[in-house]
Amino acid sequence: MALTVHKYGGTSMGSPERIRSVARRVAKWARAGHQMVVVPSAMSGETNRLLGLAKELSPEHTTPELLREFDMIASTGEQVSSALLAIALQAEGMQAVSYAGWQVKIATDSSFTKARIESIDDARVRADLAAGKVVVITGFQGVDPEGHITTLGRGGSDTSAVAVAAAMKADECLIYTDVDGVYTTDPRIVAEARRLKTISFEEMLEMASLGSKVLQIRSVEFAGKYRVPLRVLSSFTPWDIPIDEEARSGTLITFEEDEKMEQAVVSGIAFNRDEAKISLMGVTDKPGIAFMILGPVAEANIDVDVIIQNVSHDGRTDFSFTVHRNDYARTMDLLKAKVLPVTGATDLIGDAKICKVSIVGIGMRSHVGVASRMFSVLSDEGINIQMITTSEIKTSVVIDEKYMELAVRALHKAFDLEQAAAA
Amino acid sequence: MALTVHKYGGTSMGSPERIRSVARRVAKWARAGHQMVVVPSAMSGETNRLLGLAKELSPEHTTPELLREFDMIASTGEQVSSALLAIALQAEGMQAVSYAGWQVKIATDSSFTKARIESIDDARVRADLAAGKVVVITGFQGVDPEGHITTLGRGGSDTSAVAVAAAMKADECLIYTDVDGVYTTDPRIVAEARRLKTISFEEMLEMASLGSKVLQIRSVEFAGKYRVPLRVLSSFTPWDIPIDEEARSGTLITFEEDEKMEQAVVSGIAFNRDEAKISLMGVTDKPGIAFMILGPVAEANIDVDVIIQNVSHDGRTDFSFTVHRNDYARTMDLLKAKVLPVTGATDLIGDAKICKVSIVGIGMRSHVGVASRMFSVLSDEGINIQMITTSEIKTSVVIDEKYMELAVRALHKAFDLEQAAAA
Repeated sequence: MALTVHKYGGTSMGSPERIRSVARRVAKWARAGHQMVVVPSAMSGETNRLLGLAKELSPEHTTPELLREFDMIASTGEQVSSALLAIALQAEGMQAVSYAGWQVKIATDSSFTKARIESIDDARVRADLAAGKVVVITGFQGVDPEGHITTLGRGGSDTSAVAVAAAMKADECLIYTDVDGVYTTDPRIVAEARRLKTISFEEMLEMASLGSKVLQIRSVEFAGKYRVPLRVLSSFTPWDIPIDEEARSGTLITFEEDEKMEQAVVSGIAFNRDEAKISLMGVTDKPGIAFMILGPVAEANIDVDVIIQNVSHDGRTDFSFTVHRNDYARTMDLLKAKVLPVTGATDLIGDAKICKVSIVGIGMRSHVGVASRMFSVLSDEGINIQMITTSEIKTSVVIDEKYMELAVRALHKAFDLEQAAAA
Repeated sequence: MALTVHKYGGTSMGSPERIRSVARRVAKWARAGHQMVVVPSAMSGETNRLLGLAKELSPEHTTPELLREFDMIASTGEQVSSALLAIALQAEGMQAVSYAGWQVKIATDSSFTKARIESIDDARVRADLAAGKVVVITGFQGVDPEGHITTLGRGGSDTSAVAVAAAMKADECLIYTDVDGVYTTDPRIVAEARRLKTISFEEMLEMASLGSKVLQIRSVEFAGKYRVPLRVLSSFTPWDIPIDEEARSGTLITFEEDEKMEQAVVSGIAFNRDEAKISLMGVTDKPGIAFMILGPVAEANIDVDVIIQNVSHDGRTDFSFTVHRNDYARTMDLLKAKVLPVTGATDLIGDAKICKVSIVGIGMRSHVGVASRMFSVLSDEGINIQMITTSEIKTSVVIDEKYMELAVRALHKAFDLEQAAAA
C-alpha cells in the first residue's frame, strides 16, 4: 500500500466547486489503495486579503511581535481550506480529518513569516492513516518551541508537503499546480518549449532559483536532501482520468542518475528579469574588500544574487553584483553613503534594465564546451554579454533586458530542446 | 491595579477603522493603570461567510467528524480579528499579544459547535500582564482533551470573556456591544423604554432567555455562578471619552441584592415572537404521558420552551407546549405520525401566529399580585391570554401575535418602567 502525499495550490483550491473536484481526485487515489495525505494552500487570494487587513493596521516598525501576529492571521487561510477539503472528502463518503500545523505537530524555529521546519511528529497522522482516514494537513505553517504559530513564507505549502512526505517516507509527493509540468523554458516565450518527463533535482534547483516559478526552491532542496520522489502535475485535468495515466503525467523530479541525463546536455533555459546590476569600478584590491562592500548591503537585508570580482590590475579591481530590482535604488543610495567613501572606488555604475539568462543541465558536468557554445550562440545574435557566472550544472549570463526573448529562443533552438523534451 | 476584561462584538470589530478605534479605547484603559485582557468576536459577517463555504461542501448527514471541521473553520474568524487587534494595539505603542483558545489554553469538552468551557489555564496570560502587555484572547473557542479545536456556539465570545474574567478573578468584565445597555423593553416597540443602570443577574438571565438578545444566556449564567461583575455598554461612544464616565455607562449586571431591587417590582418587559403553540386535546391522563408526547420531539432535536398541563377531568387532560416557529411544521407532522395514535388524544391544534410576553423582576418574589396585575392590564386592552407560566421572578403569557406591541406598551406603562429606569 503506497503512501502518497498530494499538494494542491491556491488556484486548485480557489472555490467550493474546485475543492469538490480536489476531493474527488483524492478519493479516487484513496479508493485505488493509496494511503493519502493532502496538503492544500489557502484559497487563492485569501492570504493577500488577510495580510492586506493586517497591513492597514500595522505600525511603521517591523518587530518580531508584529510578525508573530501576521502569522496568526496568515495561517488561518490554510486552516480554512484544509477543513473545507476534509468536509468535501466526507461528502464523497471518505473518512477525513484536517490538522493545523500545531496539531500534527510541525515544529519550526521562531523566525516568524519565514520559519524553517525542524521536525515533524507524524504519530497522529500515521494512526489516522492506519484507521483508513484521509489526512489533510495545513500547508505553509508550523508551531515554534513556545507554542506560537509560524508561517514558512510564500510558497511554503510546497515545502510543507515535501517535509511531510520526507518525515513519513512517502512513496511519492505529487505537487498539483496550474501548469502541467516543468518545461524546457517558458512556453510564453518559446512556442516550441516542451514538457520534461523527468528532471534531476539539482537541475530543478537551478531552474527554480533562476525564476522558473513552478516550485518553491526550499521544497526542492528538501526533496533533494531527503530523496523524496517529487512530481509536478496539473490539477486541471478532469478528476476522473484513469489513475495510472495521472500517475505518469507531469514532470518527475528524480534524485537518481538515470540514462536520460546522458542524452541531453542542457535540460532547460531559465531567465529572470527582476534583477539590477551594480558595479564598483577601480576598487582598491585588498583583503576584506568584498565584505566591506557587501556587509552593509546584507545588513540592510538586501539579497544579493550574482557576485563577480575579476583579477586585479595595478592593485585595483572592478566589483559587480546583482540585486532584486525593487532593492536597486535603496542599494545605490546605501553604496553612495557608506561604501564609496571607504573603498577607494573610482566610479559606481548601476543598470536596472538587465536580465539573466541561464542554461541548466546536469549533463554539462561531463561535457566541455557547453558554455562556449552558449556564448557563440549569443554572439551570433549580436547580443553583448555583461556578466558571466557558472556552476557545475548551469551557466548564467547577464544581458540587456531587451534581448531576453531573443536569447532564450536562440538558446532553446541551439541546444535541441524541442527534441530533448520528447525523450 | 485593576484587572479588567473587555469584550467587543463583531460590529465593533467590523473594519480596520473600527478595530483601530477599539485599540485606542483599550490603550486608554491600559494607560489609566488597568491590566487589560480583551476578547474580540470575529469581524461581523465573517463567521457566516466561513460557515457558508463549509455548508456548500457538506454531506447530508451531520456527524461529530463533520462538526469538528466546521469548528476548524469557524474558529479562524476570531483568530484573525484578535491578531488584527494586537497589531492595532502595537501601532498605538502598546505591547500586545494575541492567543488562540488552544494557546491560553481554554479547555472545553468535545461537543463541537457547542462546546462547554471546563477550565482555563491562565498562567501565560498572567505572565504577559505582569510584563506590561495587553493580552488579546480569541473568543468563541477552545480546545478539547484530544487537541481538537472547538467552538462554543453563537454568541460564545460573551461566554469566553466572562469565563476568562472568572478564571482570572477580574475586577470587572465589560461587554462592549452595539446597544448602550439593557432596557426596560425594546425601544423600537416602546419609545419610552429606558436604560437600566443596574439589573440583577437573575433578571438578566430571564431577559436573555426571553429574547432580549443583548447577552448570550450562557455568559450570564457563568457570571452568576462565578460572581463576575458584568457591564454591558456601547462601543460606539467616542473612544476618548473620559474613562470614569465610560466606566459608569451602560448597565451593570450585579449579583448583590441591593436596595434598588426593593424599589421596582418589575424591571423589564421581554417578548418573543419566534414561537408556535401546539396542543394535544383530550389526552388520556396516565403516568408517562408527558414523556410519551415530548420524547419523540426531543429525539428529533426540537427544543421545547413553555410546557403546560392542567389538571384532568374524567381521566383526560389537554397538553400544550411551544416550539420555535421554524420547527412548527416538522413537530406537527411528527405528532400526527408518532404521537397522536398512541395517546388517545381527541384533537391536535397548532398555532404559529402567537407570541410570548413576559414581565421580569426580582422584586416579584416579595410582591403578591404582580401576575394578576399583568392579567388585568391585558384584559383591559381586550387581549385574550392563551397560556400562562410563572417562575419566581417572571410571568409569561402566550397571546395572539397581533397584540404583541399593544401588550408590551400597556405593561411597560402599567408597571411604571419609565420612572423605574431613572433610578
